[in-house]
Amino acid sequence: MVRWEPDAAGRLRRAALELFAERGVEATTVAAIAERAGVTERTFFRYFRDKREVLFGEQEAFAGLFVDGLRASAPDAAPLEAVAAGLRAASAFFTDDARAGARLRSTVIDAHPGLRERELLKMSDVGDRMAAALRERGVAEPGASLAAKSGIAVFHAAFAAWISPGETRDLPELIGEGLRELRAIAGRNG
Amino acid sequence: MVRWEPDAAGRLRRAALELFAERGVEATTVAAIAERAGVTERTFFRYFRDKREVLFGEQEAFAGLFVDGLRASAPDAAPLEAVAAGLRAASAFFTDDARAGARLRSTVIDAHPGLRERELLKMSDVGDRMAAALRERGVAEPGASLAAKSGIAVFHAAFAAWISPGETRDLPELIGEGLRELRAIAGRNG
Repeated sequence: MVRWEPDAAGRLRRAALELFAERGVEATTVAAIAERAGVTERTFFRYFRDKREVLFGEQEAFAGLFVDGLRASAPDAAPLEAVAAGLRAASAFFTDDARAGARLRSTVIDAHPGLRERELLKMSDVGDRMAAALRERGVAEPGASLAAKSGIAVFHAAFAAWISPGETRDLPELIGEGLRELRAIAGRNG
Repeated sequence: MVRWEPDAAGRLRRAALELFAERGVEATTVAAIAERAGVTERTFFRYFRDKREVLFGEQEAFAGLFVDGLRASAPDAAPLEAVAAGLRAASAFFTDDARAGARLRSTVIDAHPGLRERELLKMSDVGDRMAAALRERGVAEPGASLAAKSGIAVFHAAFAAWISPGETRDLPELIGEGLRELRAIAGRNG
């Protein structure tokens, strides 16, 4: 029988981020994470395969938000509009009470070249999947890739702003600003 | 005394690419590369640190072309115009007689996840360096990152077209088309 542990996954995630930030990822053991979260190691492994999965475990669900959001846009939406719908759908993942955790996660990842690469590859994969979804609805290359990758650049810049110290605007607002900035830059006079 | 070997580096590069394509990178030894190029292993190591450096050794020079090209653009050039100058400068690296070798290199890299990641990180680094060069000339964020990353997306798409079977247009022309496509996509109606 599984013992009831209110939000054990959430507590494990917070404990892991704190320890990663304090000691670094290498020096943090699963035992230490479980101890700080007040659960057993066995409980840790019920939720996560290893300590890195605490940082990247929601990868598949996250990538799916972009693609599903894009697919849910009007079939005749212009390519960048469809991409923008994907970005807005993904930004729902990052509510305001997730901002502190996202800041901590980002600090941990930025301190570790291997994790930064993994994060970069994750976003590149999201871009490839949005480009594929655009091609499925008839957008030709290079338009599909350019719209998807420019959209990822907008998301990345908006996310960096969202977790920057003192920033209070929400992520959808920052994404909207990024899209306007992209349109200004790529405008005929840009 | 160093024996004179006409274009030993070029022959080693061609031999390595052929062997990588035939056998895969893992199964190719430096000894086999040297043998096919008709030189000694010692000669190989005079030009390359290891076999992967045959694929990535010109990385620093290549990244520099983008940044130098950007810096050489008019100081009051719009951000995407400055980035376009960087892309055009880098495309000089890829003359028409380099196309067959670039196709082979791309086939080798696409077959190998670790090499694809390294290639992706290389281009991401080029984007970061162009964004930094834009900030140095007063372009604010997120504009600097958006212009640089959209530019990298244009270069990537143009390069993929350049090495696609039967393509005869040159790389600067394909880059010009990509930039027009980006402007169309990000246009007010795009």
